[in-house]
Amino acid sequence: MSYDKKFMAFKGLPEAPAVPAGANFIQYRLTGKMLTLSGYGPLNGPILPSEYQGKLGRELTAKQGYDAARLTAINLLLITQKAIKSLDNVDYILNVEGFVNCTDDFTDQPSVINGCSDLLVDIFGDKGKHTRSAIGVNTLAFGICVEIGMSLIIK
Amino acid sequence: MSYDKKFMAFKGLPEAPAVPAGANFIQYRLTGKMLTLSGYGPLNGPILPSEYQGKLGRELTAKQGYDAARLTAINLLLITQKAIKSLDNVDYILNVEGFVNCTDDFTDQPSVINGCSDLLVDIFGDKGKHTRSAIGVNTLAFGICVEIGMSLIIK
Amino acid sequence: MSYDKKFMAFKGLPEAPAVPAGANFIQYRLTGKMLTLSGYGPLNGPILPSEYQGKLGRELTAKQGYDAARLTAINLLLITQKAIKSLDNVDYILNVEGFVNCTDDFTDQPSVINGCSDLLVDIFGDKGKHTRSAIGVNTLAFGICVEIGMSLIIK
Repeated sequence: MSYDKKFMAFKGLPEAPAVPAGANFIQYRLTGKMLTLSGYGPLNGPILPSEYQGKLGRELTAKQGYDAARLTAINLLLITQKAIKSLDNVDYILNVEGFVNCTDDFTDQPSVINGCSDLLVDIFGDKGKHTRSAIGVNTLAFGICVEIGMSLIIK
Repeated sequence: MSYDKKFMAFKGLPEAPAVPAGANFIQYRLTGKMLTLSGYGPLNGPILPSEYQGKLGRELTAKQGYDAARLTAINLLLITQKAIKSLDNVDYILNVEGFVNCTDDFTDQPSVINGCSDLLVDIFGDKGKHTRSAIGVNTLAFGICVEIGMSLIIK
Repeated sequence: MSYDKKFMAFKGLPEAPAVPAGANFIQYRLTGKMLTLSGYGPLNGPILPSEYQGKLGRELTAKQGYDAARLTAINLLLITQKAIKSLDNVDYILNVEGFVNCTDDFTDQPSVINGCSDLLVDIFGDKGKHTRSAIGVNTLAFGICVEIGMSLIIK
């Protein structure tokens, strides 16, 4: 089954994130066969769900963090579709850099970012496996609980 | 007007940052057509201005953060000049990774890093637009309020 | 003397880190001549030494942070060996991204990450010099005191 069909079969896919008016950054850049994406969070179209705002280890559970990272990966793939038309043009995912908004004593960043990693492997199988980092931070933009950047290689 | 002339017309450009004596890291590396730069802060030549030391959300205003990110971008371009002689050799800016030293409840990292993004577009127009991330952290080296890494593609 | 022989002459080299069972990320990926590694910490084989768990500026000294970054670099080179057989296949180290788990008022991240940078230059000489960033954060996975990602170019 094609990557793109698998992805489009997901129920309740949100709209792709829009670029804020007047922004001087972009959502993606293709350099040769490398596609670089800006860091994104757990947006649901134009909406930032309140259950994904806040800190892991305080008002959010590890399960909410995982789900937020999964939704973030979905956004990254929606932007990938904008960039290269179809996910079938992906050769493999290269790198994922995940930041987790959390308390000083929260130490399970990897389980949170697994929400992104697992989604990528759900879609691309072994080609979805990637190098990654999973870093804790004390705050993120708009109070999102995760922000993830990604790069991938196209066919 | 050439990128390099636009940049050199700025008033009060500082000297390019120096490499600390004995350092085992370098300021830039060219790999094929990709120029990778080390992360930098808001230096004014050898001096770290006190108005750019501290945390956003505590002793520094968002305006100071923006100005610090703009000065940081200027430093990144001064190093780019060292690396490739003239900014006219830049094809496009690829990626900006911005870290903001801030309190736990500061959530406007994007507006701070806009200081860098806006400067890049002032110089390079649409070719200055880049993918980016804007991450909050609890502290940075020497108390600087922003640290930004950048990569770009040369012609 | 070959890079690989220099490295293998180190006393007490640990085993290379293993991939956790069921992980959907990988330790390294080779794209053309660029080798990208996942972020790693100061593991000693399967063990995380307690002297490298905690925060710089609180229970850990700068010397412990330096030693942890050096051990992390050793792990990154052990993974590099898995990826490309011998360190003699390294052309140069490209980039190091270091995160330091520390208190809000700790500002000497560069000295900590020097533990990694110095080890790379011990092995590769000038070819070990790299662009880098050294970022403070409020927590890291499993309480490790440093996490470092690396990319390098092979011959």
